[in-house]
Amino acid sequence: MAEKSQELMEKIVALCKRRGFVFLSSEIYGGFSAVYDYGSYGVELANNIKDAWWKYMVQMREDIVGLDAAIFMHPKVWEASGHVSGFADPLAECRNCHVRVRVDHLLEEIGIAADEKMSETEINALFNQNREKIGCPKCGKKDFTEAQKFNLLVKSNLGNFTDEWMDEPVYLRGETCQGIYVNYKNVLDSSRVRIPFGIAQIGKVFRNEITARQFIFRTREFEQMEMQYFTHPAQEMEAYEKLKEYRFQFYLDLGMKAENLRWHKHENLVFYAKEAYDLEYNFPFGFKELEGVHARGDYDLTQHAKFSGVALDYLDQATGEKYVPHIVESSVGVGRMLLAFLTEAYTEEALENGPSQNPSDTVAGRETRVVLKLPKKLAPVKVAIFPLMKNKPELVMKAKEIFDTLKPHFVCEFDDNGNVGKRYRRQDEIGTPYCVTVDFDSLGLGEDKSLEGTVTVRDRDTMQQERMPIERLKEFFTEKF
Amino acid sequence: MAEKSQELMEKIVALCKRRGFVFLSSEIYGGFSAVYDYGSYGVELANNIKDAWWKYMVQMREDIVGLDAAIFMHPKVWEASGHVSGFADPLAECRNCHVRVRVDHLLEEIGIAADEKMSETEINALFNQNREKIGCPKCGKKDFTEAQKFNLLVKSNLGNFTDEWMDEPVYLRGETCQGIYVNYKNVLDSSRVRIPFGIAQIGKVFRNEITARQFIFRTREFEQMEMQYFTHPAQEMEAYEKLKEYRFQFYLDLGMKAENLRWHKHENLVFYAKEAYDLEYNFPFGFKELEGVHARGDYDLTQHAKFSGVALDYLDQATGEKYVPHIVESSVGVGRMLLAFLTEAYTEEALENGPSQNPSDTVAGRETRVVLKLPKKLAPVKVAIFPLMKNKPELVMKAKEIFDTLKPHFVCEFDDNGNVGKRYRRQDEIGTPYCVTVDFDSLGLGEDKSLEGTVTVRDRDTMQQERMPIERLKEFFTEKF
Repeated sequence: MAEKSQELMEKIVALCKRRGFVFLSSEIYGGFSAVYDYGSYGVELANNIKDAWWKYMVQMREDIVGLDAAIFMHPKVWEASGHVSGFADPLAECRNCHVRVRVDHLLEEIGIAADEKMSETEINALFNQNREKIGCPKCGKKDFTEAQKFNLLVKSNLGNFTDEWMDEPVYLRGETCQGIYVNYKNVLDSSRVRIPFGIAQIGKVFRNEITARQFIFRTREFEQMEMQYFTHPAQEMEAYEKLKEYRFQFYLDLGMKAENLRWHKHENLVFYAKEAYDLEYNFPFGFKELEGVHARGDYDLTQHAKFSGVALDYLDQATGEKYVPHIVESSVGVGRMLLAFLTEAYTEEALENGPSQNPSDTVAGRETRVVLKLPKKLAPVKVAIFPLMKNKPELVMKAKEIFDTLKPHFVCEFDDNGNVGKRYRRQDEIGTPYCVTVDFDSLGLGEDKSLEGTVTVRDRDTMQQERMPIERLKEFFTEKF
Repeated sequence: MAEKSQELMEKIVALCKRRGFVFLSSEIYGGFSAVYDYGSYGVELANNIKDAWWKYMVQMREDIVGLDAAIFMHPKVWEASGHVSGFADPLAECRNCHVRVRVDHLLEEIGIAADEKMSETEINALFNQNREKIGCPKCGKKDFTEAQKFNLLVKSNLGNFTDEWMDEPVYLRGETCQGIYVNYKNVLDSSRVRIPFGIAQIGKVFRNEITARQFIFRTREFEQMEMQYFTHPAQEMEAYEKLKEYRFQFYLDLGMKAENLRWHKHENLVFYAKEAYDLEYNFPFGFKELEGVHARGDYDLTQHAKFSGVALDYLDQATGEKYVPHIVESSVGVGRMLLAFLTEAYTEEALENGPSQNPSDTVAGRETRVVLKLPKKLAPVKVAIFPLMKNKPELVMKAKEIFDTLKPHFVCEFDDNGNVGKRYRRQDEIGTPYCVTVDFDSLGLGEDKSLEGTVTVRDRDTMQQERMPIERLKEFFTEKF
């Protein structure tokens, strides 16, 4: 990681903590490794991301319906999917300091791509060829055990009322899409969708990642947004290309720069896959997977039909043709997308007239502002409303009145603390697109009496202020969001 | 349960399955006991319920902020909360047929209230006094073992990379509020809220309920909506009364009849609680807990300060007073609220002119319609758009055009299948407030040429149709939702 990027990452993490976007889970207990909590702005931002995804993937699509399958499923689901036998990372232990590490990550760091679908034997062959080049990340010694595959499925005792449950664990889902596959028939039977159609879902998943890294980029508990699209076998690749395009457009529509996105093709496909691409984003630590778009063939439904004994093929009423639908999927994590949007939005700007504009700001020599240039739709707070001064009841009352009028329509924040410049800096840091200030002119107490009933609306990005009648505010903001 | 109510419950369950609101989890594998999946209309309804709660509890409240703490927390959280030692149900086994049952439920069924906070000895004393009256619900025999307390916390191996994890389990949360308590300090440090203030959260919780009952009323995996309000000790009871009132109003605002809601006071309080009420709803199986509103004193923060070693008292900057805040809480399950709204909405109505209105309806003698009179805000689909006939391209094209104009603003459904009467019945069953029909008049092909550019808008509840210019639709619906 280049020094500049490391610095950017640290700034984002610090902002997240300082402004209440993201906290380490159970922090007062020393934390719970690789699990994070979202604070008041974090949860609003995450909700806005999920709403934007849902609207784009479900509401705007006549051919896609939603689903919310439970986290717990019948354990056989995970046998059918191949997770019980195959969902595993290669783990080795340092014989000197006993730290456990992922061998594929060690190899990756010296520039050797180890595919996740490699067997234990294959990965050990690659590992043994390169042991001389690989030191322990903790103690530096080059004395590792053999790599062993460790299953990522998280076990639980839900529904088990004995103490002997290790023999028959149930699993926390490792991906949401299995809930879609097992409900494919229910959806077909209860709704009007016909092939081609998609089922979309947002929900928590859990993976026993050995090394969770880079803040909210890779965590053991996270939220996935997945859409599985069921097609005629002959239409799979066409649907796949369309889906790739549609998903790329999602990010462009939300203002991401195309140069920060790139497609990465999987070279080693699992046997059933037709094609697989990752959409990578230019994170502070480099281009890494943001979203996966995969053509999965008929593997999923075939496996579930076999393991459940329930036929999952599709009868085309028009042609009489019967077939097992093929599936193309899009899959992305909420935390990862949130980190991508924070990276895209994080900006430091030199202020034209430096610290003098902001007399109560005690940070010596501050001449830059930190601003999250989030897409307006995603901003956690849409409008902040200020009385110019806290100790003038008429200003406060009028500002509260405006706040009460706007809050049913937009997420608003009322702030009367400190001087206005300081309040702007605070709203900039959380990405609030507009700040409304009530001043003496608003009350008809300034020199220009014609300004009575107007307020200033300050734009986050341009920092320009515009005077506007109070009764225009609702309409003005409605057009913006 | 009276026969009529049993019938109503069965009708609701059947509608949920038929129309894709709720499915049993992993149904093709024979199901996963006491866990449910939400289908396409179910997830929209649940999302609307969560949005309404969030807007009412967070967006509209200057003094309440949101949070999304993870499901996994440090295991010590559950020791501090008392769940590891105390979160348990009394379980007995029938010596004849080996079915396991909750003794408090058995007692409840013969009219004896067994409080959940009773010790094993206390519940066994009550059980022994009444054994003559209690038969096994499966085989009828009156031969049970002693009651034993069984812990409801669900265990897992997340973050544990050995096979010997039974000694040090981590838990899936049994309630969301613990995530709020452990983040109380983070929220105070990163946001501008000061006492009194609240933190609200929506999220999944898990309980090893021995007997899960009544469809989505009591399940092992469910979603909770909780708000914890932090007050000065002297203000606790005032805040409690206000919260009770505010929560009751929530249901009235969403059109629930006051007669279907009632407060039930807890007689046996846990030692730290000041007061506790359940808000009960008149479910098909009688008045049962919908929501809990409790005054919890300083127990939660005191316990977490003790177990974590981090001071959680509050310093009032204005008065210099230092104290541990008291907490009043509101807690309700999404599934339970959804079932309450379905119960409230489920209606069968005699149709004035019977089956003749609906010639393609093949159900013999059907003279009633089933309609979900859901509050408009909660309805899964807001507007359905129909061309009068499927095989007239001009009608279909115009209807699609309207659909495309409205769908960015409202959840819409396009339906051209079967006759219009049948399509109305379908939308009635999922609670769609409005149906828009494009007919020949709309295209200027009817007798009255002045109707060109207008459509009919049919109201779900009154079944009245109103003729309206197409360009008025967006504004008309915006006013309604």
